[in-house]
Amino acid sequence: MTMDKKEFALKQHEDWKGKIEVISRAKIQTPEELAVAYTPGVAEPCLKISEDVDLSYKYTRRGNMVAVVTDGTAVLGLGDIGPEAGMPVMEGKCALFKTFADVDAFPLCVRSKDVDDIVKTVSLLAGSFGGVNLEDISAPRCFEIERKLKECCDIPIFHDDQHGTAVVTAAALINALKLVGKNLEDIKVVTSGAGAAGIAIIKLLVSLGLKNVVMCDRQGAIYKGRENLNAEKMEMAEICNQNMEKGTLEEVLKGADVFIGVSAPGTVTEEMVKNMAEKPILFPMANPVPEIMPELAKNAGAAVVGTGRSDFPNQINNVLAFPGIFRGALDVRAKDINDEMKVAAAYAIANLIEEDKLNPDYIIPNPFDERVAPAVAKAVAEAARKTGVARI
Amino acid sequence: MTMDKKEFALKQHEDWKGKIEVISRAKIQTPEELAVAYTPGVAEPCLKISEDVDLSYKYTRRGNMVAVVTDGTAVLGLGDIGPEAGMPVMEGKCALFKTFADVDAFPLCVRSKDVDDIVKTVSLLAGSFGGVNLEDISAPRCFEIERKLKECCDIPIFHDDQHGTAVVTAAALINALKLVGKNLEDIKVVTSGAGAAGIAIIKLLVSLGLKNVVMCDRQGAIYKGRENLNAEKMEMAEICNQNMEKGTLEEVLKGADVFIGVSAPGTVTEEMVKNMAEKPILFPMANPVPEIMPELAKNAGAAVVGTGRSDFPNQINNVLAFPGIFRGALDVRAKDINDEMKVAAAYAIANLIEEDKLNPDYIIPNPFDERVAPAVAKAVAEAARKTGVARI
Repeated sequence: MTMDKKEFALKQHEDWKGKIEVISRAKIQTPEELAVAYTPGVAEPCLKISEDVDLSYKYTRRGNMVAVVTDGTAVLGLGDIGPEAGMPVMEGKCALFKTFADVDAFPLCVRSKDVDDIVKTVSLLAGSFGGVNLEDISAPRCFEIERKLKECCDIPIFHDDQHGTAVVTAAALINALKLVGKNLEDIKVVTSGAGAAGIAIIKLLVSLGLKNVVMCDRQGAIYKGRENLNAEKMEMAEICNQNMEKGTLEEVLKGADVFIGVSAPGTVTEEMVKNMAEKPILFPMANPVPEIMPELAKNAGAAVVGTGRSDFPNQINNVLAFPGIFRGALDVRAKDINDEMKVAAAYAIANLIEEDKLNPDYIIPNPFDERVAPAVAKAVAEAARKTGVARI
Repeated sequence: MTMDKKEFALKQHEDWKGKIEVISRAKIQTPEELAVAYTPGVAEPCLKISEDVDLSYKYTRRGNMVAVVTDGTAVLGLGDIGPEAGMPVMEGKCALFKTFADVDAFPLCVRSKDVDDIVKTVSLLAGSFGGVNLEDISAPRCFEIERKLKECCDIPIFHDDQHGTAVVTAAALINALKLVGKNLEDIKVVTSGAGAAGIAIIKLLVSLGLKNVVMCDRQGAIYKGRENLNAEKMEMAEICNQNMEKGTLEEVLKGADVFIGVSAPGTVTEEMVKNMAEKPILFPMANPVPEIMPELAKNAGAAVVGTGRSDFPNQINNVLAFPGIFRGALDVRAKDINDEMKVAAAYAIANLIEEDKLNPDYIIPNPFDERVAPAVAKAVAEAARKTGVARI
């Protein structure tokens, strides 16, 4: 951003005095209205819920309320800036939830980096929310926090940096493969970046049918038995790279059908694109500067390119996924957001592009396409019901 | 309440689908607006706050945001009904905060009764809020929770069941004493009920100048060395009853100038009122049925009567205090709500009744008197500045 734009953004935040606001849905202007919204009228819903906790979805805002939780350790590209400094992002996320899917979302920035502290804090508050969106928590702590919370909470726990990114990437890939006439089962995918998003993308694509995928970190291909693998990469070495390919990203990318980047600028060259399979698909999603700029990738023969940026075609933007996913989960009072619901969301997004409109510059809906959230919500709610995690 | 009214309140809660809502203050309808409210524009306020945490008051909603926290152990007169069942009250409280003082308040119902769990949960979230209102937490845990939170948090911690009640009771007593021409320093006050509210009322009145006060529990007067005193009552035995009066409520009420009840219906009889000092003042605040009905007290010679009920004159209602107290605290980004701020709030409420309008049926403003919250906020903010707990 230019200095002008930075200063404008700062001024705008000052003028907003916060990007969210908590308002009253109850009109309280007379003693009679006060007596219904507060004491003594409020005793009735209290007693009903004390008899059946699920009625909290009926008589309180819980059924439309999501907590957006961070510890401020991996905020945007800024890193570990602390919980208070993460708040502008969390408020922004809450604003997006409301704007795109009428989900009430409230930001909670936790003053601890300890996994068990964060898990305990969130789990003790689970009765106040219909779901939890984890955000900008650094890896590998984010995996453990999500896993532990899923075990102890009766509401959906969803780490958007992982699963939101995975769902939208999967949607983009489904449509890109239609264009080049290939099947997920038959192709080779190479990814660069072994963080939260990279891992989640691979897991979701594998559950969609992908068989041949090689994940690279800065040292190159990850394979079973390689040195310098943490617990997460070891787990990925079991899932990926069945052919035990070794070598640099450049080496394993040779002959690959798809490149997915969630790593760093400049990781991929034109030469590397030329050495991929025919009609290669590239999603260089590093922000703000992608692994390879779209025009370079196209010049080198890329059939389809998608990035994280709004100023290029095919923006792979989480906002296409998380509002509708939570909308759907809340609509059926889901206990979880499971793989089937994520897969349903990916297909719902992909299927919004009619076949006659599908083209290399339009494989994924625009973030402001109003059809997206309702379509995702519907598909996610159906998947929740089918898999038995819906309360209604 | 009649069955009709109960059913109406229940239906109304169902129709509301929650009494609060989280909305977006940022308009996000174009890519440009998205780029300011979210990435990349949001990075600027994040970076500023990471350099100076106090800027979270400037660039986020923190400066107008209060957490309303309960564990659901002492909800209204319903007792320990659990965190989820307490939510309708907490949402109601949040609705009152917004309606009466434009304070954003968000309900957090904690799934634990453990003091340290609750303290840790709230303290880890203190960076997301400008203040914390504790609500409907059972005694004596509420005292320990408040004390520990005040020690470890840099934002105001305020248990409304204690201090809100105390402030409004003090305001009512200040004006009632004007009517009967007595001074707080000279009178004898007898209270019934040794719960959170009863204790807080006495502490605040003592800090206002009251010297002679006898606190009664179900066994009668509390005095130093009496049997069956818990830690809180032992502390009160040090503050109260310097004359070491012993006996039942009926016995110690003889010759008293003021009765304050936060106990149970029917505790006070006409005969007992007749045995009080001249022009006795009675605040029988048990809800919904007071310790003595106002007409009985008046028949027995009461000069002024105030209750907790809206259908009698002089309703001693917390809503006169907490919205303005937090409004004032937030306006100066206070680190604490201290005794001086509570005293200032009590006088601000009392002083709203002009001398020529003051009469036995009008010692305290109506809950819907729009002058109240701004007057309280102004007085509280000034007291915060004077006592050095204001950040600005």
